[in-house]
Amino acid sequence: MSHVVKKRKLDKSRQDSLYFDSYSDVTIHEEMIADHVRTNTYRMAILRNSECIRGKVVLDVGAGTGVLSIFCAQAGARKVYAVEACSIAEQAEKIVKQNNMEEKIQVIRGTVETVDLPEKVDVIVSEWMGYALLHESMLNSVLYARDKWLQQPGGVILPNKAELYITPICDPVVEDRLHFWYTVKDQYGVDMSCMSDFATKCIMNSDITVNSVTVEDVLSHPARFAELDLNTVTVEELRSVKGDFTCECFGSAAVNAFCVYFTVTFPCPDKPALVLSTSPFKPETHWKQAVLYLDVPVDVVQDTLVTGEVSMYPSEASARHICIHVDYTIGEQKKQSKTFSIPDWSSEAQI
Amino acid sequence: MSHVVKKRKLDKSRQDSLYFDSYSDVTIHEEMIADHVRTNTYRMAILRNSECIRGKVVLDVGAGTGVLSIFCAQAGARKVYAVEACSIAEQAEKIVKQNNMEEKIQVIRGTVETVDLPEKVDVIVSEWMGYALLHESMLNSVLYARDKWLQQPGGVILPNKAELYITPICDPVVEDRLHFWYTVKDQYGVDMSCMSDFATKCIMNSDITVNSVTVEDVLSHPARFAELDLNTVTVEELRSVKGDFTCECFGSAAVNAFCVYFTVTFPCPDKPALVLSTSPFKPETHWKQAVLYLDVPVDVVQDTLVTGEVSMYPSEASARHICIHVDYTIGEQKKQSKTFSIPDWSSEAQI
Repeated sequence: MSHVVKKRKLDKSRQDSLYFDSYSDVTIHEEMIADHVRTNTYRMAILRNSECIRGKVVLDVGAGTGVLSIFCAQAGARKVYAVEACSIAEQAEKIVKQNNMEEKIQVIRGTVETVDLPEKVDVIVSEWMGYALLHESMLNSVLYARDKWLQQPGGVILPNKAELYITPICDPVVEDRLHFWYTVKDQYGVDMSCMSDFATKCIMNSDITVNSVTVEDVLSHPARFAELDLNTVTVEELRSVKGDFTCECFGSAAVNAFCVYFTVTFPCPDKPALVLSTSPFKPETHWKQAVLYLDVPVDVVQDTLVTGEVSMYPSEASARHICIHVDYTIGEQKKQSKTFSIPDWSSEAQI
Repeated sequence: MSHVVKKRKLDKSRQDSLYFDSYSDVTIHEEMIADHVRTNTYRMAILRNSECIRGKVVLDVGAGTGVLSIFCAQAGARKVYAVEACSIAEQAEKIVKQNNMEEKIQVIRGTVETVDLPEKVDVIVSEWMGYALLHESMLNSVLYARDKWLQQPGGVILPNKAELYITPICDPVVEDRLHFWYTVKDQYGVDMSCMSDFATKCIMNSDITVNSVTVEDVLSHPARFAELDLNTVTVEELRSVKGDFTCECFGSAAVNAFCVYFTVTFPCPDKPALVLSTSPFKPETHWKQAVLYLDVPVDVVQDTLVTGEVSMYPSEASARHICIHVDYTIGEQKKQSKTFSIPDWSSEAQI
């Protein structure tokens, strides 16, 4: 059934408790562990960094079930502090014991902003990325941990770089859904074609939709519009992550949405860096892609320019939720603007 | 991502406004119209009842897009009152005009409890069924309309009978999800088998899950535990719909859930009645089936008896939401009890 969602504000502490509650169910951890691209890339990156991990102290920010902490212990860490605010920390404890790593891995229940570590750390590892990189992400906590607990100079952050991309797409599901209302007459003898305007308003709304975008849907080479260096970026800078983009369309199509996705990069001493990509051109991850629907489809042809600026910032309703504002010009069209946010079911559902 | 949901109470009027809001999006109407079993069965039932519809007055309770009202007009109704409380009524208006039926069909925006009709009606048609028949169903409104507006004697209600069924099943998805944690060691070299207890608690919870149950999952002939005669049933009686069941298992399996589903029946003068079935043995509908997970799987063999009593009643938090309480005995096991409800995301999401 469909769900029309109204906005509601929550005070900060409430937001946090809801946020942490939502990670106490098994499903999300199952989904994250089962995401081979995610888990294998982290595993490979940690093992390839064993030179800078062996004998060193590691902080795992938002450790969840503790799988990254165990990878770090396997890579030879002397000590791993697995900091986790949710009750899933109790499961991490059990898993650490089951893998006989109580000596090396200390699970600490709490937020990284409040816990007290006995020492500075040489390495910070964290899987902090949310939908569209920054939705409900833990990046602020990682930066806090970096500034408070990471040895400087020489401290290592895994991953140490994040990049954001945008590309115009044609979502065929929307095409089909809008066309559906023209097919009702043949099916049932009732003309419902007048519903297509209403359907367009409902479907091509200002929600950030998390969807699997396939290669066939992509209408141009993706354009990188932002890069974050995790060694230097500040919480202040995260309050507005923006950049320009220019895309040249491959050929004739109807643009009905933008696709936004991210990559994160792991440094690998003496080896090429490892990239965890959520690109529609790469194997699917549980992050899929963020889809931003235009109000109406716009026809493009080969080499039609799609240019503009993307700006991502925390929503007023909840600092953990992002808004994405896109100013864009398609071919000869005049400049358009649309602001998108993740529908509140994602937060409502955590209540 | 997964969503752990806490309960929240809403006052009645708030509940109603949320309830009606949720039907103002296109998706649910698309889903209902595209449900061929639903829409074709109603269409056939209405056309086969043209003898009692031709020249008569019809009330469509919760008309939505008005498709059933148009079927009734096509069947020869003199007048159809299409009563709809949501803003989708505006779309129904347009659709009625587009099909040139303004003369015959009057769309009335409001709840059937509050609208005033110019005359009594000969026929009430309504698609009022919710998940597990009664979750967020409009049946109370249909009964209100019956008692206030339906000609007696001789008034016709389409459908005029509803039946509820239950059967033990083995949901293979749950089996796989619980097994997943034993596979992590082979995949990533980390033993996470101790997560399976936590996973069992999270997955086999007391939510009513709306799922497609396949024939292969069903472990016995379904047992009918309740029947509602819409000509006589009262709102009072709906406050507790209950009945016994006895199921004989087909063969060796692990019962991990009960499946509850419903049928509704349309009388057809001089013809066999038409049945709209949501049985797992019949083509899928958008209602799918209601799945109720046991706390732990129970092994059964051929002819193992699964007996008990099912009781369905409105939840305290919201009269529109149902609870399903099941007392059951599997083979030699001692009697067990579990109470299920639809997770609040379904209502939260309507906020």
